[in-house]
Amino acid sequence: MFEIVRRDGLARLGKFETRSGILETPALLPVVNPKINTVTPRELYDEFGFRAIITNSYIIKNNPPLKERAQAEGLHKMLDFPGVIMTDSGTFQSHMYGEVEVTNEEMVEFQKSIGTDIGTVLDIFTEPFWTKEQTAESIVTTLERTKHACDIKGEMMINGVVQGSIYQDLREDCARKMAVMDIDVHPIGGVVPLMEQYRYTELVDVIISSKKGLNPNRPVHLFGAGHPMILAFAALMGCDLFDSASYAKFARDDRMMFIDGTYRLADMQSLDCNCPACRGHTLESLRKTDKKEREKILARHNLYQITNELALVRRYIREGRLWDLAEIRCRAHPELLNALRRLKEHRTFMELTDPISRDGAMFYTGSETRGRPIFERYRNRLMERYIPPTDKAAIFPDSEKPYSKHYVSDFNKVRTAGYTPIVLSPFGPVPAELDEVYPLAQSLFPQIADRETEEETEEFTEAFLKKMGFIDVRQFGDIEPGEIEYDADLLRAKAVSRYQFGIEATEALFRGKIELVVSRKTGKIRNIISDGEHVLSMRAGDGLYTLRPEGAKRVLKAIPSPKMRAIVMDDAVPYVSNGRNVFCQFVIDMDEELRPMEEVIVVDKDDNLLATGRAQLIKNEVKSLRKGIAVRVRSGNDES
Amino acid sequence: MFEIVRRDGLARLGKFETRSGILETPALLPVVNPKINTVTPRELYDEFGFRAIITNSYIIKNNPPLKERAQAEGLHKMLDFPGVIMTDSGTFQSHMYGEVEVTNEEMVEFQKSIGTDIGTVLDIFTEPFWTKEQTAESIVTTLERTKHACDIKGEMMINGVVQGSIYQDLREDCARKMAVMDIDVHPIGGVVPLMEQYRYTELVDVIISSKKGLNPNRPVHLFGAGHPMILAFAALMGCDLFDSASYAKFARDDRMMFIDGTYRLADMQSLDCNCPACRGHTLESLRKTDKKEREKILARHNLYQITNELALVRRYIREGRLWDLAEIRCRAHPELLNALRRLKEHRTFMELTDPISRDGAMFYTGSETRGRPIFERYRNRLMERYIPPTDKAAIFPDSEKPYSKHYVSDFNKVRTAGYTPIVLSPFGPVPAELDEVYPLAQSLFPQIADRETEEETEEFTEAFLKKMGFIDVRQFGDIEPGEIEYDADLLRAKAVSRYQFGIEATEALFRGKIELVVSRKTGKIRNIISDGEHVLSMRAGDGLYTLRPEGAKRVLKAIPSPKMRAIVMDDAVPYVSNGRNVFCQFVIDMDEELRPMEEVIVVDKDDNLLATGRAQLIKNEVKSLRKGIAVRVRSGNDES
Repeated sequence: MFEIVRRDGLARLGKFETRSGILETPALLPVVNPKINTVTPRELYDEFGFRAIITNSYIIKNNPPLKERAQAEGLHKMLDFPGVIMTDSGTFQSHMYGEVEVTNEEMVEFQKSIGTDIGTVLDIFTEPFWTKEQTAESIVTTLERTKHACDIKGEMMINGVVQGSIYQDLREDCARKMAVMDIDVHPIGGVVPLMEQYRYTELVDVIISSKKGLNPNRPVHLFGAGHPMILAFAALMGCDLFDSASYAKFARDDRMMFIDGTYRLADMQSLDCNCPACRGHTLESLRKTDKKEREKILARHNLYQITNELALVRRYIREGRLWDLAEIRCRAHPELLNALRRLKEHRTFMELTDPISRDGAMFYTGSETRGRPIFERYRNRLMERYIPPTDKAAIFPDSEKPYSKHYVSDFNKVRTAGYTPIVLSPFGPVPAELDEVYPLAQSLFPQIADRETEEETEEFTEAFLKKMGFIDVRQFGDIEPGEIEYDADLLRAKAVSRYQFGIEATEALFRGKIELVVSRKTGKIRNIISDGEHVLSMRAGDGLYTLRPEGAKRVLKAIPSPKMRAIVMDDAVPYVSNGRNVFCQFVIDMDEELRPMEEVIVVDKDDNLLATGRAQLIKNEVKSLRKGIAVRVRSGNDES
Repeated sequence: MFEIVRRDGLARLGKFETRSGILETPALLPVVNPKINTVTPRELYDEFGFRAIITNSYIIKNNPPLKERAQAEGLHKMLDFPGVIMTDSGTFQSHMYGEVEVTNEEMVEFQKSIGTDIGTVLDIFTEPFWTKEQTAESIVTTLERTKHACDIKGEMMINGVVQGSIYQDLREDCARKMAVMDIDVHPIGGVVPLMEQYRYTELVDVIISSKKGLNPNRPVHLFGAGHPMILAFAALMGCDLFDSASYAKFARDDRMMFIDGTYRLADMQSLDCNCPACRGHTLESLRKTDKKEREKILARHNLYQITNELALVRRYIREGRLWDLAEIRCRAHPELLNALRRLKEHRTFMELTDPISRDGAMFYTGSETRGRPIFERYRNRLMERYIPPTDKAAIFPDSEKPYSKHYVSDFNKVRTAGYTPIVLSPFGPVPAELDEVYPLAQSLFPQIADRETEEETEEFTEAFLKKMGFIDVRQFGDIEPGEIEYDADLLRAKAVSRYQFGIEATEALFRGKIELVVSRKTGKIRNIISDGEHVLSMRAGDGLYTLRPEGAKRVLKAIPSPKMRAIVMDDAVPYVSNGRNVFCQFVIDMDEELRPMEEVIVVDKDDNLLATGRAQLIKNEVKSLRKGIAVRVRSGNDES
């Protein structure tokens, strides 16, 4: 029902199937007030392209004429909206105005009776000022109600709202319990007060702890989040759905949303907007426009800001650059910047889904970029998987990339003296052998380093030099050439293999006589032939390997299952053997250490090689998802 | 001819008077190819609102039919453009294709003959790869030609192009020599190769060194800069005019400009643009559109990106927040971020024009924010003008602002023990007495500090504690209350005065019996009465003083001229005495240490008090500008 079409870390482009059509995510659902339509649902659909809206079933239920119409005609007809309709249950009303006088069962049944596509449990809104005990107790009730709602939901889909206030363990625990219930969408609830009070760091903790427990097979809805300013950042943390009542509320108060904040018409000094709603208007003309008409213009303006930003978020996910956008957006307010800095604390979790390589170059946008999981991963892999070819290290300052081209004669000089060249890059120490691996070569940093970079790099370098046990470390300028012979290509070939597949697999891949096929044009390694078998091909783009069938066979023999593998059901065997992709529902097991875009060996349950390919999802996702590609399989000559 | 209407540091909203109307700056001049009009000049004027364009007189001169028409009809009629027309002289052609076969005199005369509003000297393009000698020699020629062009320009305005390649001293020297010539616009030339090669740090040096020498009375044109990505940053450094040929060139190559970069239509995966040109198009429909038609759509798209960003730049200047925008924009590319970091090196120069207070709060966007001159200023003033009331210091960690409210009882406790409370803020040490001064209270930082902030703050605190000669420094928690009496309001009143006006002026202002008028509602200081005279009023907004006439008289007696003064001509005396603003052309002299928005005492040439007010411009500007307000004078009861 939910398919991940494209992903960028936790962020995803998804397709969510409902009985009112497929909803492409990330998506925002404008909140439609069943009584007042500043912009009609039909306009939301036709003019703005919104394919889903949200309205409040509690309000409808309490308004007899509306209730009667809704039950007679159904919501879709009543609102004149052909897309997906989600309804809220009255929980937010209880947060705003105290207790509501309905039961969960009544609300679920009512939502069914009016033809809602996605209804909501009457959960309990956990306020950020509640004690942990109070919060935990209320979650017990929320879970009971959710369970009951699942039992009676019938054809209607159901929102099971994760609660837990600001307590990360309660959020994660609630999410895990929700994950195994028969619910369809995972809203993260109780976050509006955090956003209203600019408590974005806590919002980060809430989202991440929820994501840890939630079922990847369902879209995650950040309930009440709709300001364009926050969409990129929330999507980065894996939120798929958003909603906005503000577009209309702000319009009513003469406030305009922009990507950098919300401004009162009265305070603005000029109107700098080319959106279709504002086009042709000046600040003066807008102020003079009749209130009702102006409210509509402003609401439409606000909606255009949202659609613009959402389109941009989708583009950046597609390009694998959502970090860039989110890091820039978070600078609109210091509390958002603080939240971005907070996210660094969650980098180990973020690393699980961070792709092993991306298409474009990585851009550094500020010291906060160091919070990206790629830094953590590089450090871990280098420390665990690198074996220095000599016991002496020559230190080089950062320079133009690739280093092995820029420093070609100096690298040679120190190597003839028995030194291993190590460049001090903003990623930390980079041995010459690894300098073309993603993102070491495929990244751009400002040359004027910030202290964060300087000090973290220095600290990492020290730890690295110590761990590697070099007996002599010196600046490259202080080294005289010697006469030691070495094979730079072979050193690189092995070092990259260890970095990518680990030390053990590399032993198996580099066995006996090794021949390297090098591109005449670029001088770069292309193929690794081991004992006459073509085991690996190196990609020019990211400097990493494609695993060839002969190589895969070696790994299968040397490394116990399920390492580096995806194991598929018998049903899938003929298809996969023919070069078809591996779909989630056919995977029995998968190595949990595989990251998106890593090389995977696809085997049957007897560990026979069927194909090689690249992981699109991680184990946890593959196990949950019922649709979508788990491994993109490589056909015969495809080396991508 | 050039009036500064509003300013934000070096950035300015200006009005430039030409014979074809007033051009509001910052402005961008689309480059119009006299042979091909992707978008017609009339459309540029009517649809996009461009009030000035640039075209190439050298191309016109070398095309006999065009030449004939231009000389017969004049450029305005030939191009059908009612606004300002600037022409280029062939210099850029010489950079592109080598020598051009015309003389400077021919080109100037030709430009006059076709009715150009602003012509350009045939200067020599200084290439970034030239030696310093070669560059210096060519500048001699450029200066001679410029001098000659000024002599023969007649009614036409003239561009005198600053050259000097990447040599800062040559740029500044060239600018100084240009500044005293009779030219009308100051283009900064020879920068296209730097921009093409992403050498933005050198561009920063080039712009700043030019600005140091240039005449503030003329708009500064960054020749060849037109990508929306760079406009905010260039405006921040004081560039007023830009031009763009790229909007059309890129369109011809199927490339679309966006604020985050330029994308090829072929590479794009979706079209996420709501601009009037793209509206209604999908990526597919655009790709299928006939080449000629598509070129026009893309050119219009590119122009809308430019007008959008320019409008935003104007808005941020108006709001005094251009640093925020520029700091965000510079994160689109690591080389731009590097350039932003480079700008920190020029903070002493930037400080000269940085306003003493701004209307809104200061937002921290990343460690680069520390390069803003306000940090430097705070440090200098604190070190030079602060006198600790006791010889013991109590250290407090950063907290919610204002500190004196958050720490009210702790401040009291340590003061009764003879300690002066010092809060370690991201600005450095903040004594309790100064905590409400702009921007100490009116700023927002992320709570998770970067190392830059941590270390610079620590280092500054150490230097401060040492300089102040405290004999005892301890954490506030380690201090037991004592019984010493103190007057917190009086301490604040004096400390703010010293910070704002210096130690000497404060001696004069706080003489004899001091009474403080405190707001009953807010508890904040409002007025200072010294020996029965109302000398100062404190503004709630920025925590700084308004100088009252009685206070001004004290300062005049105590501090020698021209300190804290603007001295006006006799002609202006009656007007200024009546509360009219001081216009630049009437100022004889002015204290060069006054910064924008500082209190100024306006006097006649015999040092008689005429009025008090706030500086809008600094001395260097006031002396050069022929129009505009130098000091905004305060009428009787106006305390703003």
